[in-house]
Amino acid sequence: MLESYLLSNEQFTSRLRQVGEERYHDKHPYHIAMHEGKLNPAQLRAWIANRFYYQKNIPVKDALILSKLPSREERREWIKRIIDHDGREGNEGGIEAWIRLGEAAGIPREEMLDERHVLPAVRFAVDAYVNFCRLEPWPIAVASSLTELFAPTLVSKRIGVFEQLYPWIRPEGLAYFQARLTQAPRDADHGLSLVLRECRDRREQEQAIAALRFKCDVLWALLDALSLAFPGGENGR
Amino acid sequence: MLESYLLSNEQFTSRLRQVGEERYHDKHPYHIAMHEGKLNPAQLRAWIANRFYYQKNIPVKDALILSKLPSREERREWIKRIIDHDGREGNEGGIEAWIRLGEAAGIPREEMLDERHVLPAVRFAVDAYVNFCRLEPWPIAVASSLTELFAPTLVSKRIGVFEQLYPWIRPEGLAYFQARLTQAPRDADHGLSLVLRECRDRREQEQAIAALRFKCDVLWALLDALSLAFPGGENGR
Repeated sequence: MLESYLLSNEQFTSRLRQVGEERYHDKHPYHIAMHEGKLNPAQLRAWIANRFYYQKNIPVKDALILSKLPSREERREWIKRIIDHDGREGNEGGIEAWIRLGEAAGIPREEMLDERHVLPAVRFAVDAYVNFCRLEPWPIAVASSLTELFAPTLVSKRIGVFEQLYPWIRPEGLAYFQARLTQAPRDADHGLSLVLRECRDRREQEQAIAALRFKCDVLWALLDALSLAFPGGENGR
Repeated sequence: MLESYLLSNEQFTSRLRQVGEERYHDKHPYHIAMHEGKLNPAQLRAWIANRFYYQKNIPVKDALILSKLPSREERREWIKRIIDHDGREGNEGGIEAWIRLGEAAGIPREEMLDERHVLPAVRFAVDAYVNFCRLEPWPIAVASSLTELFAPTLVSKRIGVFEQLYPWIRPEGLAYFQARLTQAPRDADHGLSLVLRECRDRREQEQAIAALRFKCDVLWALLDALSLAFPGGENGR
């Protein structure tokens, strides 16, 4: 039987990484076009403004996971994610950094905050992610965060892409991506260690893998919505 | 009609304070006996071990409220409550401090952690509080936290009571109470400002007042359960 034995940590990690190889949003035509420098300013601004709806919900889903973690030791580690995004005195945090990315790309702050550019399908996908974290057992919710396993490589490329292919974006707008280069690996290590520790039978391991697929679908749906509303990016127009 | 007009901030605050005057747990016979030095060691240890179940759930209910707050500015303030209890590097936090209070009173750490002393009715009451914060709109959940309006006066008395009337409790166990002398007024100020701002019609104001009554009932039920399981405290035996 396919699902009859427990995967080793190595096999389990490999299956999780395989999800990224197949479904992470860097394979989406809109994202490929972005990294090839083929998005026009309206298309790139639309990505920034819609992705902001995802960014601003990260601390919400992380607070929901925080409320379910079984001990203060785990909460002390997890809470760093919320502080990374919300900031604290002396560090404005990732949400503010993303607003500044928008400003650096010519999107006024108030247009980011009032959600006028957010497409309905983007809202549905992100809200589905938040509800997934609200409703699922915490190890499965944590598994859905493991797109961070794939993020650092992509984000480090993106910094170069934005600097070289979209020089009309002011460089101070890239601080969000720079911060994620250290935050995401730390978060991925912690998240992966929790998932490996908690998923102790094959059924739970498969649920974790499915959760990561679900999360990839969320990010993919965001780009689908942009492709439909701002066509032509995937063809270089 | 009684409920036909909006209460002024002054009237609303006064109604909230009135709830404390009528129902805060310092009026409970078990609590009165505690502050009169009349609890025997078993009764006081039972209070510490059962109250710990409340203490350890504070960050849980605060994470649930955090997940519902509408902006990062409000989350940045609220998250301090979680850090106060869970601690961070260099500051062990309130949950650890309460475990040390237990140890200072002769309760082994493992007996605090495994919940063997927690009475069923205490569990029900505290779980009801957590679920209230999970399910109610956030301004109402915040209103339920406003027992902090009444806490500092009581806690400052309690430090003297423990030092003078229960000298068998090692004094280093009182660090939790000392920390709350500065944390609770800050939390109460912030919580009250949110409730005053958000409850903009009389129905919401009455819901907030009812939420604070509910919270007082939670704390009261904890002492009821102790009175039944450890009788005689109210009579000095």
